[in-house]
Amino acid sequence: MNFTDDFQLDAFGTNIVYDAAPSDWLTLLDSNLKVIHQDFYNEDQEGYSNLVKRLRAWTWCHKVPKDHRDYVSIDQIAEIAASIRAEAKVLVTVGIGGSDLGARTLHDLLNHPYHNEMVVAGKITGIPEIHFTGDTFDPFRLRGLLTMLKTRNLLDQTVINIVSKSGTTAETALAGMILADAIGSDWMSRTVATTGLSPKSLLYQLQEKGDGKFMAILPVPDGVGGRFSFASPVGLLLLAVTADSDPQTRLRDAFEGYTKTHEAFLTLAPEKNPAYQIARFLHAAEVFCRKSALVFYPYFDNKKLGDWFVQLYEESVQERGSGLNILATTGPTGNHSLLNGIVNGARDKAVLFLTPRDFGDVMAVPEDAPLEGSLKIFQGLTLAAAQTASLRGTAEDFISRMVPTATLSFPKRDTSSIFALMRLLMDVVAVKGRLQSLHLDPISGKRRIADEETYIQNGVEGYKIRMRDNIKK
Amino acid sequence: MNFTDDFQLDAFGTNIVYDAAPSDWLTLLDSNLKVIHQDFYNEDQEGYSNLVKRLRAWTWCHKVPKDHRDYVSIDQIAEIAASIRAEAKVLVTVGIGGSDLGARTLHDLLNHPYHNEMVVAGKITGIPEIHFTGDTFDPFRLRGLLTMLKTRNLLDQTVINIVSKSGTTAETALAGMILADAIGSDWMSRTVATTGLSPKSLLYQLQEKGDGKFMAILPVPDGVGGRFSFASPVGLLLLAVTADSDPQTRLRDAFEGYTKTHEAFLTLAPEKNPAYQIARFLHAAEVFCRKSALVFYPYFDNKKLGDWFVQLYEESVQERGSGLNILATTGPTGNHSLLNGIVNGARDKAVLFLTPRDFGDVMAVPEDAPLEGSLKIFQGLTLAAAQTASLRGTAEDFISRMVPTATLSFPKRDTSSIFALMRLLMDVVAVKGRLQSLHLDPISGKRRIADEETYIQNGVEGYKIRMRDNIKK
Repeated sequence: MNFTDDFQLDAFGTNIVYDAAPSDWLTLLDSNLKVIHQDFYNEDQEGYSNLVKRLRAWTWCHKVPKDHRDYVSIDQIAEIAASIRAEAKVLVTVGIGGSDLGARTLHDLLNHPYHNEMVVAGKITGIPEIHFTGDTFDPFRLRGLLTMLKTRNLLDQTVINIVSKSGTTAETALAGMILADAIGSDWMSRTVATTGLSPKSLLYQLQEKGDGKFMAILPVPDGVGGRFSFASPVGLLLLAVTADSDPQTRLRDAFEGYTKTHEAFLTLAPEKNPAYQIARFLHAAEVFCRKSALVFYPYFDNKKLGDWFVQLYEESVQERGSGLNILATTGPTGNHSLLNGIVNGARDKAVLFLTPRDFGDVMAVPEDAPLEGSLKIFQGLTLAAAQTASLRGTAEDFISRMVPTATLSFPKRDTSSIFALMRLLMDVVAVKGRLQSLHLDPISGKRRIADEETYIQNGVEGYKIRMRDNIKK
Repeated sequence: MNFTDDFQLDAFGTNIVYDAAPSDWLTLLDSNLKVIHQDFYNEDQEGYSNLVKRLRAWTWCHKVPKDHRDYVSIDQIAEIAASIRAEAKVLVTVGIGGSDLGARTLHDLLNHPYHNEMVVAGKITGIPEIHFTGDTFDPFRLRGLLTMLKTRNLLDQTVINIVSKSGTTAETALAGMILADAIGSDWMSRTVATTGLSPKSLLYQLQEKGDGKFMAILPVPDGVGGRFSFASPVGLLLLAVTADSDPQTRLRDAFEGYTKTHEAFLTLAPEKNPAYQIARFLHAAEVFCRKSALVFYPYFDNKKLGDWFVQLYEESVQERGSGLNILATTGPTGNHSLLNGIVNGARDKAVLFLTPRDFGDVMAVPEDAPLEGSLKIFQGLTLAAAQTASLRGTAEDFISRMVPTATLSFPKRDTSSIFALMRLLMDVVAVKGRLQSLHLDPISGKRRIADEETYIQNGVEGYKIRMRDNIKK
């Protein structure tokens, strides 16, 4: 199998947006895509330091050069994971935004869906139970976590991983300090710091100060924004800690998928390249079809991929008064929620389905299940077949009602495919940013090496300043 | 305290939408609201049967008349809950959409955030661990649930609650039948059926057929749509099962809050009535300010309220080509996700914050926490104070950038307040539907008793038909 077999974009419902656009605009769009493709290739050839400056070092997460201070090998991550597995019954990841969602999403997609129940009951051994915190000031869940750990006498078998590139994110820092206080004076020895390896990071400063040493310090590499960091130590450590066999093998599988998309992104011509074709669909929907929202509709069981994509997309390409809103849902759950609004509400939406082709399971409805009437057709059917029929039926219905619809399929829910898929979605956002000219200075129209707006998010400064003012009052 | 003290709408950022509307339109809007208020009052006076016909029987969840076939008392629900607590170590709720989100949302908001870890570890006793399924065909999580229950030898201590008004919802029925098959031939005696008490329901038919008897059968009352059902047995049974003290007391608290909002909705004049004022804000945002999305921003820790509101709003008032899209997030988590897009992206959004005034917790950052620079101001601060400052800062920033913003505050996160809050949000949707004339026949413009579009969702039939066609192929 190769990339074009693995990732297939079924775009039979995309004509709805293209029919609305004049053909010379579409010709221009396609020549823009060719230029963007060539530019990305050239930028990659210029090497890692250049990618760092452009905040695109995430494209090399699988191959950070060994001479770079941010380099950390699979073996090193696996080693830290092994010591966490040996020492801890609980791992708490403390982060918010991109410092949180990468690991949460991987845990949700790739680990046992009842991981903690299995661990607490002693049916998964040698792997800690997994919790997440640090994404709010509301004390409700943090209080609950501390109560739970204290009641179970687990505080001295807890390792925390504080994830913050700058180390100055208030929500994360406060939760981290409260957890540290609960753990006691040797908290640093039971804390992994995942942060920028520079004096700008408060966590890095703490390590340098020498009052204590972190159990480990892992890099969020320069040029890798939080929302682009899932394939850095931000996501990889959790994946290694929770591997059900050998952590190294799992990390190698992850990088195999990531590498595959990386190479396809650079070398596969835009007209055959799913990242480019999805960006093209979104851009035409927005600019010519006047759509204001994309329904992001992974049609398989997941709880976090939509949250991850909302952050990725909305912080990156909702800029300069443009950018589709993302309505994240999951199929078929969303069919019983926002679907009525897609077909009966304002016609301001395009839809992107994602689906594995192989659900890897033959669980079926019993032949003699007491189902009557319209449900009789499900007797003996595998759930995978029902899921596939449900997706097809939904896509066909949307298209018949003139809702622009595309479906991206990928092989299956495994580490390699999920890494390839998430990397592909980051590439979609990268291309969309260029289509919106976010790499050009808005006044002069000149190209910029740094400060491409796709990779910064200056809109968030306002509330931070006002929050601090409110505290000082 | 009374309702107007408990629920306060801070609307200092709503002028942004009203300034865009001509004053005579606003005058008309306010006289419409008065008519709607009077109509709702009159309809309530006509009694329960009338409310059933109008699909508004949910407004009387707290007082279904005893002579009605759907009547079930708090004592009866508490009794069923007591037998589940006595017999089961696991309760699995099987449902999708409104038959799922009511119970999920209450469990998330009102129970211990680490409920299952505490139960499995034996630190909460006499209350089962809680799981949800039935909202997808994807076998991933259902397979995981069965594996987990089998590995732990818990299948014979599991009770399932199948929630489906019609009993014909395919996702729920399939998961239910697979669970039933795993439990064995006496599955009915360990199953609660929460369904419509009429031969139209397959679950009701099964009970009547007499091959077995359900452990209990509970009504989703006539005239109560799934998305309006949280205060019916759909939500109440779970609340009773997981009560940390007396189930009856908890259910009485729930109804106290529900009753309070019910009475305020009927009697408090529109200009002082938060349900009416929020609907007014949404309607002006949509019609005159050309906003296409509402950011629904509960600013306190929760994971499900947004999903519940998306379903409530989008199935109800996204009709006839209108209706705002709902972008659901949580504060401050969303500040690190979609916030950049609110201020830098398309100016197509209005924002509704929800916040408890009392977080009920004095957890504070240690005075000597090693925080430097901009983080120093947090030393010694309670998390509740930080959360409040964060909300204020965010609201002030939005308003300064001309993003229409309103903030609804409620007393605290307890059973009574949450029931009052969720009822209030259902009332907002009811009023918004009337403002959109969804109670009028779209051709003749005449009032209809039944088929008010707010309470039906006919957009979903298309995909269901096509899904069945795809299975028959």
